[in-house]
Amino acid sequence: MSPDEFRKAAHELIDWIADYRQKIPELSVRAQVEPGAVRRALPASPPTGTDDFGLLLADLDRVIVPGITQVQHPMHFGWFPSNAALASVLGDIASSGMGTLGISWESCPALTELEEVVCDWMRQLTGLGEQWHGTIHDTASTACVTAMILARERASQFSKNGAGLQAAAAPMVVYSTAQAHSSIAKAVQLAGFGNDNLRLVDEDPYTRAMLPGALAAAIERDLAAGNVPAAIVCSVGATATTAMDPVEAIAIIANRYGIWLHVDAAMAGSAMLLPECRHLWQGVEQADSLAWNPHKWMGTILDTALFYVRDVAHLEAVMSTNPSYLRSGADGQVTQYRDWGIPLGRRFRALKLWFHLRLDGVDAIQARLRRDLDNARWFARQVEAAEDWEVLAPVMLQTVCIRHVPGQSSGTPLSGAALDAHTLAWLESINTSGAAFMSPSLLDGRWMVRVSIGVEGTTREHVRRLWEFIQRSAAAA
Amino acid sequence: MSPDEFRKAAHELIDWIADYRQKIPELSVRAQVEPGAVRRALPASPPTGTDDFGLLLADLDRVIVPGITQVQHPMHFGWFPSNAALASVLGDIASSGMGTLGISWESCPALTELEEVVCDWMRQLTGLGEQWHGTIHDTASTACVTAMILARERASQFSKNGAGLQAAAAPMVVYSTAQAHSSIAKAVQLAGFGNDNLRLVDEDPYTRAMLPGALAAAIERDLAAGNVPAAIVCSVGATATTAMDPVEAIAIIANRYGIWLHVDAAMAGSAMLLPECRHLWQGVEQADSLAWNPHKWMGTILDTALFYVRDVAHLEAVMSTNPSYLRSGADGQVTQYRDWGIPLGRRFRALKLWFHLRLDGVDAIQARLRRDLDNARWFARQVEAAEDWEVLAPVMLQTVCIRHVPGQSSGTPLSGAALDAHTLAWLESINTSGAAFMSPSLLDGRWMVRVSIGVEGTTREHVRRLWEFIQRSAAAA
Repeated sequence: MSPDEFRKAAHELIDWIADYRQKIPELSVRAQVEPGAVRRALPASPPTGTDDFGLLLADLDRVIVPGITQVQHPMHFGWFPSNAALASVLGDIASSGMGTLGISWESCPALTELEEVVCDWMRQLTGLGEQWHGTIHDTASTACVTAMILARERASQFSKNGAGLQAAAAPMVVYSTAQAHSSIAKAVQLAGFGNDNLRLVDEDPYTRAMLPGALAAAIERDLAAGNVPAAIVCSVGATATTAMDPVEAIAIIANRYGIWLHVDAAMAGSAMLLPECRHLWQGVEQADSLAWNPHKWMGTILDTALFYVRDVAHLEAVMSTNPSYLRSGADGQVTQYRDWGIPLGRRFRALKLWFHLRLDGVDAIQARLRRDLDNARWFARQVEAAEDWEVLAPVMLQTVCIRHVPGQSSGTPLSGAALDAHTLAWLESINTSGAAFMSPSLLDGRWMVRVSIGVEGTTREHVRRLWEFIQRSAAAA
Repeated sequence: MSPDEFRKAAHELIDWIADYRQKIPELSVRAQVEPGAVRRALPASPPTGTDDFGLLLADLDRVIVPGITQVQHPMHFGWFPSNAALASVLGDIASSGMGTLGISWESCPALTELEEVVCDWMRQLTGLGEQWHGTIHDTASTACVTAMILARERASQFSKNGAGLQAAAAPMVVYSTAQAHSSIAKAVQLAGFGNDNLRLVDEDPYTRAMLPGALAAAIERDLAAGNVPAAIVCSVGATATTAMDPVEAIAIIANRYGIWLHVDAAMAGSAMLLPECRHLWQGVEQADSLAWNPHKWMGTILDTALFYVRDVAHLEAVMSTNPSYLRSGADGQVTQYRDWGIPLGRRFRALKLWFHLRLDGVDAIQARLRRDLDNARWFARQVEAAEDWEVLAPVMLQTVCIRHVPGQSSGTPLSGAALDAHTLAWLESINTSGAAFMSPSLLDGRWMVRVSIGVEGTTREHVRRLWEFIQRSAAAA
């Protein structure tokens, strides 16, 4: 395809995208397709010949759009916000259009150095000290695997360069809580620690925050048993309830025992753009690694996960390779991001953040985050004030965990499996309607509904409407 | 940014991209910036306020473009081709514009099912059997880490679910060659095997292919020592010289000993679109996993790395998590790609392949690949026919490894460090000129130059011009 053919098609595509974004509020929030429906709408064999671009656009409308759960919809309250701010989309389009290759500084100096610059801007915007150095990963999951490997290699004196983890003198152990994201247990398993060596430290039964005393006791037990405490993963805004582990107290323990501390702030990192929220990760400066996702609430389009470490020399010692075919005269003077993570090649992801910050502006992003915090507090007050409704966890950010307990006010509350069935029934009736979407989660083995506020287009009016839907559905269920 | 503001800015950006792509042949191939120049051209502090979009475009021209090594330039012959075909760029733009979220089938059924479909199309287009099931990773490096973890868990009877690799009864061992990509050794280290347990099996001194007899002997030695052979990584188109390990012979050995066989065809996978090339990976059907990058020679924009396995149940057993907040009614009926790799969230990458195949067409892609193979053979013949020039390895695909040895024809060939200095000098004079770019590599400890043909815009005339540059530069060095 020539640049001029591209020009013509891309202009059509841009109009299609702008129209699509405009009509999102009219679409069903949850995709209304059955399993296999999209696949069956497509040929089982690869195309022969070529298609006109108009046919592709028609297929986007016919096949793809009905198969999208609209996470940009103002009535989307599922999972966590996954905003794709159009300012950041422009940066992503620029990245695609230029077709650069990030495999070394030399292959695209601008890619490397803009990434250094925007990661440092984000460091400043979240109030982190100058000792932190950042890079962009695809997801916080990948960042966590990297952190676990960094911890493993520190605790094993670089076993990777020798006989490997399999020659470990004593089991290495990782500490977290049951609230931690599923990617934490996965990272512990992928890094080779083994699930038996993941300790789920006791939590406070209301805040769901890790109890520092329980952590210290668990570490002492492991030391007494001859095990090697290697890493602690501290959740700042855990998935189910946005629970906040007490970073400062945990960091003191981590430092006392020389344990790698990784802070998983995938969700809550966006809140750190607001100075009034930074107390929520007080102590973070003492951690060893830190990840959070601008591609969630802040809204720089996926995949934009920031990963910061303090000890770059350790990071590079663990992750670097230096093959002859990638050497250049600039080596030693420049950052080689291939030595900061798992993949060798990288896209020009920094453009997304650069465009987002410059076009939308920090002030507007902050104002939007504050709006969402206000909406969450307002919503929680409505739920708390309503008969037979419960807010199940502290509203630390923009997610409100709720449950409808019929009969509670009359002293005969629904419970057990019947309560679960009721919760899932009223939720499903809303999700199936397409008018709004929320996702459930288990808390102490019982289903609850997470109302996660924070889509760019979600105003107070949308939240108000959601609360009406919820009350009506629960009454009818 | 509203959809209408986006529309206006994006149209400007599309024209900028089309113009940029048109002028690439006039730009310096290698970025002409000093280390730190891009960083210094940008503010050290994050922006306050907002910028007009015009200012962003001006900064792309002023700051970014001079810092790009033009891998889409027809005179780019460095590393491996990294084509970003504009048809695939359109698919990438559609992905960005829609702002979907891939964390489960339910979060975007179309994302999951289109990925299933295009991976299966690519399976058919490369002549693979129906037992292969594919997904899209960011890079072959990540795919290799995944493969090494799959092998580790098979050989250790799922140590991840128990005491981890650290409790391994006996060292697990991985086999590859010195020609294998740097990501292989990195993957072995990251997966926890330890570098001591990576065996670099002897190669044929001319083809650089793994010697099956040497592999079998190495395995027998390990077995006799009580070690556990866990994985073999077979390179199909290794980086330095596109060496081809004999897959069939290796697969027979792998199967005899029950060892996981991963085929790294990152580069050569594109060639398998041509039936006449498929003998190069004869035996691949017996491997356990397989990765290749359409984002290289084939030209679907980075990041598009295909990863195929035969045993999906094993893949999911190793990589899956099932947190309550991601469960849905579709579970069990659908593919959950989060359980096929490291990251949880994913972009809608399948669109890139879908657009590329449908808009450019398989015929045109195949014709271009054959053109490049022809050009490589033509170029190799010129080098072979020229006095004091050598082609150092068989031209298996589109990469020609060359060296100029002054004095060879007169019986007093330059050698040793002086030859290295000469090689790097004539190469650097071309790269510095900006008129063309190639990258060097070590072969048997001596520098050579890799001429890697295959940029979409590279015609015979560009290759002819390169050969003139090379001869002139070598004569002057």
